Amino acid sequence: MPAYKAPLKEINFITNELFDFDQHYQSLGLGDSVNTETREAIINEGAKFCEQVLAPLHQSGDEEGCHWSSEGVTTPKGFAAAYAEYVEGGWPSLSMPEEVGGQDLPHSLNIAVGEIMGQANHAWAMITALTSGARQTLLAHGNTFQKEHYLTKLASGEWTGTMCLTEPQCGSDLSFLKTRADDNGDGTYAITGTKIFISGGEHDFTPNIIHIVLARLPGAPEGTKGISLFLVPKLLHGADGTDGSELKRNAVSCGSLENKMGIHANPTCVMNFDGATGFLIGEANRGLNCMFTFMNSARLDTSLQGLTHSELALQGALGYALEREAGRSLRGPQSPDRPADSLMVHPDVRRMILTIKSFSEGARAFIYYVAQLSDLEKSGDELSAKLMGFLTPISKGFLTECGIEAANIGVQVFGGHGYIKEWGMEQNVRDARIATLYEGTTGVQSMDLLGRKVLIDGGQTFAAFIAIIRESYPDIDTDFLPALEMQIDQWEALTHAIMSNAAGNIDELGASSFDYLMYAGYTVLAWFWARMASVAKANSEKSDTAFYRSKVETADFYFKKILPRSQALKIQIENGSAVVMASSIDDFKDLIA
Amino acid sequence: MPAYKAPLKEINFITNELFDFDQHYQSLGLGDSVNTETREAIINEGAKFCEQVLAPLHQSGDEEGCHWSSEGVTTPKGFAAAYAEYVEGGWPSLSMPEEVGGQDLPHSLNIAVGEIMGQANHAWAMITALTSGARQTLLAHGNTFQKEHYLTKLASGEWTGTMCLTEPQCGSDLSFLKTRADDNGDGTYAITGTKIFISGGEHDFTPNIIHIVLARLPGAPEGTKGISLFLVPKLLHGADGTDGSELKRNAVSCGSLENKMGIHANPTCVMNFDGATGFLIGEANRGLNCMFTFMNSARLDTSLQGLTHSELALQGALGYALEREAGRSLRGPQSPDRPADSLMVHPDVRRMILTIKSFSEGARAFIYYVAQLSDLEKSGDELSAKLMGFLTPISKGFLTECGIEAANIGVQVFGGHGYIKEWGMEQNVRDARIATLYEGTTGVQSMDLLGRKVLIDGGQTFAAFIAIIRESYPDIDTDFLPALEMQIDQWEALTHAIMSNAAGNIDELGASSFDYLMYAGYTVLAWFWARMASVAKANSEKSDTAFYRSKVETADFYFKKILPRSQALKIQIENGSAVVMASSIDDFKDLIA
Repeated sequence: MPAYKAPLKEINFITNELFDFDQHYQSLGLGDSVNTETREAIINEGAKFCEQVLAPLHQSGDEEGCHWSSEGVTTPKGFAAAYAEYVEGGWPSLSMPEEVGGQDLPHSLNIAVGEIMGQANHAWAMITALTSGARQTLLAHGNTFQKEHYLTKLASGEWTGTMCLTEPQCGSDLSFLKTRADDNGDGTYAITGTKIFISGGEHDFTPNIIHIVLARLPGAPEGTKGISLFLVPKLLHGADGTDGSELKRNAVSCGSLENKMGIHANPTCVMNFDGATGFLIGEANRGLNCMFTFMNSARLDTSLQGLTHSELALQGALGYALEREAGRSLRGPQSPDRPADSLMVHPDVRRMILTIKSFSEGARAFIYYVAQLSDLEKSGDELSAKLMGFLTPISKGFLTECGIEAANIGVQVFGGHGYIKEWGMEQNVRDARIATLYEGTTGVQSMDLLGRKVLIDGGQTFAAFIAIIRESYPDIDTDFLPALEMQIDQWEALTHAIMSNAAGNIDELGASSFDYLMYAGYTVLAWFWARMASVAKANSEKSDTAFYRSKVETADFYFKKILPRSQALKIQIENGSAVVMASSIDDFKDLIA
Repeated sequence: MPAYKAPLKEINFITNELFDFDQHYQSLGLGDSVNTETREAIINEGAKFCEQVLAPLHQSGDEEGCHWSSEGVTTPKGFAAAYAEYVEGGWPSLSMPEEVGGQDLPHSLNIAVGEIMGQANHAWAMITALTSGARQTLLAHGNTFQKEHYLTKLASGEWTGTMCLTEPQCGSDLSFLKTRADDNGDGTYAITGTKIFISGGEHDFTPNIIHIVLARLPGAPEGTKGISLFLVPKLLHGADGTDGSELKRNAVSCGSLENKMGIHANPTCVMNFDGATGFLIGEANRGLNCMFTFMNSARLDTSLQGLTHSELALQGALGYALEREAGRSLRGPQSPDRPADSLMVHPDVRRMILTIKSFSEGARAFIYYVAQLSDLEKSGDELSAKLMGFLTPISKGFLTECGIEAANIGVQVFGGHGYIKEWGMEQNVRDARIATLYEGTTGVQSMDLLGRKVLIDGGQTFAAFIAIIRESYPDIDTDFLPALEMQIDQWEALTHAIMSNAAGNIDELGASSFDYLMYAGYTVLAWFWARMASVAKANSEKSDTAFYRSKVETADFYFKKILPRSQALKIQIENGSAVVMASSIDDFKDLIA
């Protein structure tokens, strides 16, 4: 397995040259407190930890997996120690406010740290990412007691957090969630029910685990409007959970671990709540609204995983293709003194490498753009909040689909060797496969995008985003501008056509949602590639010319060899919903009778 | 995990209604010896064995895997016993000629049996498929001694066979193959070298294993023109291998097993040949030509695996989607008395189901068409041989890529549950992943197609195939004919354009080869879907209307929602090779320096 290297040059290109994070932070009123130097120092320090501590545990963690016993769950060798080192380094509190013991740095910086930690060890980093989601939920919706007693410990990393939504009978559709919350009459609730697919629900990283749990109060309205959110700690402060004295075991436990395709090193738990003591977060019956804070955080982190799997495929495949020799160029031998030419002489190998390169570097630009929006949203900017809402399903849905494709290409470049565990490429495929499933499947993202974020929004946020893209035209290199303009105009027309068709036939929405999400993804990535190429061209006079040349060439490749996929998607969308809806369910049943 | 059901109705539709195998066999001069009744009796018997014996071992075999010791390799519990039952049933000798103890049935019947065995248990069936390749190689190129002493035992299934090509330093490119064959002066050779990725190289199914091995004679020409083919048995007849007396251990052994992503139940062996006694097959230095018999057989069997993984995804996902309830139709509740509607009300779920249905049933038509060609080829028909050569890389490359996509969709329909081992969908993804790698990667297939089978052939076979398609137009339903005609005309123009561009710049070939192979695959499948829909429409007056309705609806879906992908591929091809070849290898090296 190739040693992971944090892509510092790429991150610096995005944060310094493409987006100018210095200027961004100044506009947030942070002055010079997080200038280029500070940022790079933090990321470099993170890179050391990722390369030296986390990455060496990535493959061994997959092989060993997690261990369940009635006493609890142990993670693979080295995982808990790595977590202790992470806490020691102060990483958990990076973007938490000072009042809960945090370092008050912008959230976007967390994204950069999250990128490299996830790449070094997806399964390990999931626990830190979910804890971050729990922190943000309590920060936004928790009361003073919850912040003081629980959020501070989550901020320091002393404790970790989980998100408990899914139940055996419901995942994507939470309306028939059954977990019950009975009022104990003392300000606490007794939580009873079973949650499944709880990542990091039980482990040996920390003594306490704070579960953020969706449950239903007695007599609550049916459906999603009767769901409330609760904080349910594994260990409680004293008998009634309020007095801050010695910690006491709560009635929540891990019943078993799931046996999964990948992310073996992350314990995916069945969690049993047997009248466990919980605290209401926010208002009763408004739990789903509070949980959206968590879900949006988790979705952005999952987008990051799309980047992760593309980047790992690129590092592995490019290294291998440059080293391995096989066959001869059809142009004639390129290395006549060697028994064969480099794999890189073959156009089809280059196609594969450039595809994953365009996904990985395009995804990074996309995500760091959203990260900036998340800073602006936190500072109260409404448009940024809306743009985040619009872009989150695209980045989550599209980038994780790209991650799976990239991971598969990573294997393909290695040929038969890619199928063997030692190279790490097949683990990347297995790990990547979860990303289009959890935190809302691609189908769920695509309906969120086209239903909620486009149609219900009346196309306003879409229009605002298109306007921002058009405002950037003066900075786009003329080699890319015409193709970009054509694409954006087409996107606009296509979006309006779907909105108008859906008004007459609501199935048009669902039948085109996946294709639309992918179309949107390819289009947004085209914008970022055009911008990256433009910046690279402008900077290509600098000394590091191979880096900039490659950026322009990859952008060229993206426009000519990847973006055309959007034209197939457009035709498919225009071909409508009739062929999707024609068969009756009874006919389908008859087929397997 | 859903129980596997052999898709008998689908196989009957293809063999009786779409292609009229009765008429096909009569045209081969077989009279009524293999009429509908015989065929169905054989397939039904095979289905019982597959459903009752092989399928129950599919998941347990994956979990247990194979075990290596210095004594040999054992396969998972039940595998060897299932093999004994397979031999007992007379399945190995189905299409072998009578002179080696076979039943002399047509090869195409083997394909139908191979389909259901592979679907029931991919890892198990690989050993039978490779043995079939070894049989065909000896039948075509073996001498009387080899046929009498070895082929008869392979035909009966008493022994199994392998294909030994790959070495650590070479896979796709066999030109620097190192395994040595020294003349023993007694008609035998001493084979020395290491072969890797040998499926079924060692196991406990049979006492003897016949390795078909590529090796180099001393002083042979360099490159692929100095490679010869050898028969190297694990157990030899007597000391010199010739006297037919007691079997004696040969100097060939399994050094270790590979630790793989999937097909865990198939032992992938590193094979060490330590001066092992071997027999030359065919002429010296013409080994690669003889091996092509084996490779073509293996490639057709791998195409079948593309169908396998699509079919398994379909059976799993359709069953789940019909059973699972989540969410409500946007049209309003369709099952108001239930807590939620069926998954099948959601257009995006239908899109996924119909995609894998169109792949699975389209693949079956494609493969059975090629199976007919293989009968005709064996009967000496030259055009059929050429058409086989043209269609094999398309079916192998395209259908296995579809198999991976289908397997991934199979997981996606299950949501998070698809990622859990118990449902079997993730195993399907892991098993499917090998099929685009072994027996020539998709890249190798695509260069075989565009380089050898189109360009070097001067487009003659392509033209012959297009002519056959056009001859079928009178039988194509008018709902599908215009779209099919347009597609075929476009394929023709695109092929000519590539041929002419490649004459000026050979990189055009490699840079468009993958896209061209996929374009060809989508186009060929469109032909079969148009034909299937036409037959189904004509037959829709019969009682089983849901089956025929669904055929027509799936064809509609294919033309409107899948075939448009070819338009993106066309644009990508037309965008040329420049963006693929622009970067220098040094620039790539610089990126990871």
